[in-house]
Amino acid sequence: MYSYVSHLYCPKCQDNFDSSTKQHLCHCGSPLLVEYHLEELSRAINKDMLQTRPSSLWRYHELLPINSPENVVSLGEGMTPLVMMDELGKQIGIHSLYMKDEGLIPTGSFKARGASVGISKAKELEVKEIAMPTNGNAGAAWSLYAARAGIKATIVMPVDAPEITRNECAIAGANLHLVNGLISDAGKIVGDLVQKQTIYDVSTLKEPYRIEGKKTMGLELAEQFNWEIPDVILYPTGGGVGIIGIFKALKELQQMGWIKPDKFPRLVAVQAEGCAPIVEAWEKKEKSSEYWQNSSTVAFGINVPKAIGDFLVLDALYETDGCAIAISDQALLEEQKKIANTEGCFICPEGAAAFNAARKLRENGWIKETDKVVVLNTGAGIKYPNTVKMNVPIMEPEERININ
Amino acid sequence: MYSYVSHLYCPKCQDNFDSSTKQHLCHCGSPLLVEYHLEELSRAINKDMLQTRPSSLWRYHELLPINSPENVVSLGEGMTPLVMMDELGKQIGIHSLYMKDEGLIPTGSFKARGASVGISKAKELEVKEIAMPTNGNAGAAWSLYAARAGIKATIVMPVDAPEITRNECAIAGANLHLVNGLISDAGKIVGDLVQKQTIYDVSTLKEPYRIEGKKTMGLELAEQFNWEIPDVILYPTGGGVGIIGIFKALKELQQMGWIKPDKFPRLVAVQAEGCAPIVEAWEKKEKSSEYWQNSSTVAFGINVPKAIGDFLVLDALYETDGCAIAISDQALLEEQKKIANTEGCFICPEGAAAFNAARKLRENGWIKETDKVVVLNTGAGIKYPNTVKMNVPIMEPEERININ
Repeated sequence: MYSYVSHLYCPKCQDNFDSSTKQHLCHCGSPLLVEYHLEELSRAINKDMLQTRPSSLWRYHELLPINSPENVVSLGEGMTPLVMMDELGKQIGIHSLYMKDEGLIPTGSFKARGASVGISKAKELEVKEIAMPTNGNAGAAWSLYAARAGIKATIVMPVDAPEITRNECAIAGANLHLVNGLISDAGKIVGDLVQKQTIYDVSTLKEPYRIEGKKTMGLELAEQFNWEIPDVILYPTGGGVGIIGIFKALKELQQMGWIKPDKFPRLVAVQAEGCAPIVEAWEKKEKSSEYWQNSSTVAFGINVPKAIGDFLVLDALYETDGCAIAISDQALLEEQKKIANTEGCFICPEGAAAFNAARKLRENGWIKETDKVVVLNTGAGIKYPNTVKMNVPIMEPEERININ
Repeated sequence: MYSYVSHLYCPKCQDNFDSSTKQHLCHCGSPLLVEYHLEELSRAINKDMLQTRPSSLWRYHELLPINSPENVVSLGEGMTPLVMMDELGKQIGIHSLYMKDEGLIPTGSFKARGASVGISKAKELEVKEIAMPTNGNAGAAWSLYAARAGIKATIVMPVDAPEITRNECAIAGANLHLVNGLISDAGKIVGDLVQKQTIYDVSTLKEPYRIEGKKTMGLELAEQFNWEIPDVILYPTGGGVGIIGIFKALKELQQMGWIKPDKFPRLVAVQAEGCAPIVEAWEKKEKSSEYWQNSSTVAFGINVPKAIGDFLVLDALYETDGCAIAISDQALLEEQKKIANTEGCFICPEGAAAFNAARKLRENGWIKETDKVVVLNTGAGIKYPNTVKMNVPIMEPEERININ
């Protein structure tokens, strides 16, 4: 069997739904999650079988919701490298510091994972047209994967979103709209559109399969650490699907007996000081977050004033003894620079925020010197040219470099 | 043994050199190539041993010139995906069309391979400072890998090189210079600098190890095709190191008995109409090329008016019954668009030129319908935002999308 998908369920009211027809939110308003026949699955396959499979996220196809391999829409995404950050680790005081580099993936951001699995499932469900609001990277990824699947896409993004993501949507042939506002404004425009027309709404967590793509980050981390999970995972958190996905992956692997049942990594949700609703909720020990007024940060991917899955993110933090922390724009931009000239990695500002969070949590003792720590870099720095300031003089061909 | 490197040799005058000390060009002016103890190597390892190794180019470390694993400077580069291009293949009339996507690599271009191996060897040779001219992507890659190795870098690039590559050099902390001219002008500036100071010159083919990094594209292709090599490989050709490297890889695999000894893929050097010295030389059946006057193309990476390794590129074309072909800027930009909205891949203009070459060579019958064809996409499209033209209207938050 290519997939061991069972059904969809609501994590809030526990109602069940059929995964072979189109589904969005539960009638209670909650996102839906995918359930698998895990016991059957763990009898049918074992870890060693993975070794000879291609190094893409589809190596875990039994744990993904696509029933038929011919519906898979893939550009080779996944199994991104786990990079040792020894020099930075020395500076921060963490012996084992790793970066999982989600810049090395089609479209240059982790959004490709959700797009690959989400579009594959949309194809399986015979969807002809999708629409979504985006802070840029998700729209770019879904536009390109939709093009590959022959599905029409309508994308609405804030004018302030990274410019390169417009190019990606445009060259993919998507129907692109810019809005003079935030992702929440884009969301309202998409909400109106999908009500008026039979367009499949693929807004964050409004279709249940994007999270299954993000989940593969957790599966890969477990495999890359040889099924010994690390102590701390830091994740830049906007909509929060990544953190929800990683937590879901680890729970599934525990149920299958592939990793120890008694240990979770402490999950850390990293936000920007200019948009930190999850941090505020976590500090107050709330179960959900409040809409963050006048949000603003250079780390545009985490400028999400209210996430629909906030309660699932907070749940993951509480259950794993994790935490939430907010980083200033200045601190994350300085960290981005440090990482490039110490480790040779040009990472995105969101990833830089997560590294700065590791530094701060080490300083205040929350992370110990001996903890095995992983930072998720969610995208390539080359998508954010504006974060690098420089002033380079121009030479004429006959000029020579002065040495002194 | 981590490496089976033997020595360096000159492909022109056959002289030999020691690889444990710094070497540049041969006294006869030719680039030097690396020789390995291939017989010993093929007795010591076999193909199956590769299966459990990490999916980076360092899985082939025995065939790379670094003696000590602690000198390896890696960001997880290599084992880039081989993507099936079925829809485009149908349109062009090629049953088996593949893209090897070198956009999914640190720094977003295939230059990372040469930088990883070149900087690793520089570290092994205790180099403290490097300098190079570049059309952008190589300078970006070498700056970042040098930063990781703690090596100082001076980079000289044309003002017209892709802007993002400036950011990469700058954030890596390189000493960056822009020149109001071509890469050949940048080369003269670097040539002057390395004469005046003891800086290690890492200009294309002036150090012998970059090519070993590029070679891994050939090794990976062989492994990804399960050691059955394809019929045609198309490669966008500027300095030509990629094509030389792939040819070298295949010859080494033949000597080791890992692939059939009697068959090469037909190698195709793809250039731009505005800079086609290799094409001109190939058409005249010359052994080397002439400097191309007033070169110009949007595919900036292949704007190289005279390549120091031109004779090795031409040799590879003649020996494999390959060919050389020039593509117009208009045709490659149209191809780039077609590939994005048919296959969901936003590739670089150089890669698009190679796809357009496949289309043209199919039209004139040089490529057959049943040939297994691989196109190398040498970089991510996101590094070239200017190749996408668009005009997207901006909505106010209260506006809604009109449907008719």
